[in-house]
Amino acid sequence: MMSVVPIPQRLTAVTLGCRSVANLRAFYGAIGWRENEGSDDTFTSFTIGTVRLALYPIELLGAEAAPNEPLAAASSWNGITLALNVAARTDVDQALAAAVNAGAQRIGLPEEREWGGYSGYYADPEGHRWEVAWAPWLTEFE
Amino acid sequence: MMSVVPIPQRLTAVTLGCRSVANLRAFYGAIGWRENEGSDDTFTSFTIGTVRLALYPIELLGAEAAPNEPLAAASSWNGITLALNVAARTDVDQALAAAVNAGAQRIGLPEEREWGGYSGYYADPEGHRWEVAWAPWLTEFE
Repeated sequence: MMSVVPIPQRLTAVTLGCRSVANLRAFYGAIGWRENEGSDDTFTSFTIGTVRLALYPIELLGAEAAPNEPLAAASSWNGITLALNVAARTDVDQALAAAVNAGAQRIGLPEEREWGGYSGYYADPEGHRWEVAWAPWLTEFE
Repeated sequence: MMSVVPIPQRLTAVTLGCRSVANLRAFYGAIGWRENEGSDDTFTSFTIGTVRLALYPIELLGAEAAPNEPLAAASSWNGITLALNVAARTDVDQALAAAVNAGAQRIGLPEEREWGGYSGYYADPEGHRWEVAWAPWLTEFE
């Protein structure tokens, strides 16, 4: 047998611990995302590219992932950003407007970034940060 | 032109705000992950499947993503989990052991999950939670 890396360099899922799965489920639906089968107000998932984005009650996720820690404050930024790239610069503004229309909070204004692209942020109704980005050299996606 | 979903159902990157990029860079290197070009102790990224995992100083990330909020406490769980699936049940134990060996903290013991698989968690040196999971029906990966 070939030897394999014990920890494959891979991402299968991102799970957001939710105060209200129902509220976030409604938001991600309102931005046009389609749920996977088997979703309800206690658990839902969306296939984002090749990754699964899961929404799960934060108390239950914490019981698995951080059993000895208090839950973080509901409204504070969690220190992580998720990003999705779009194919054109104008798509950044369009996506941010669509997110705000669906109930997201706009974070600042989109701007030119020193890495050579253009991006802006929104926060979902529980504060998870999404960056919508355009990188001129990246216009096709898996 | 075809109309398009304004917010594509896609994930391009996950960025972890870091107290020390250097420390986390060393950890992710120690579990065997290869960095993308252009990495240094102020910014690094790893291609995990089709997604880019970026490590960036939390003050700088916060200045973009949460400019009006205090940073979360350094040691508290952030309410999110990242998961990577492996092809065999025994790979879960092997990967967790490798992570601990590289400096991760084991969170509980791996166990059978009600969703039909087997998984366990570790925390990286700044507390980001990774679930290593085996789902019997998912043994090939992109």
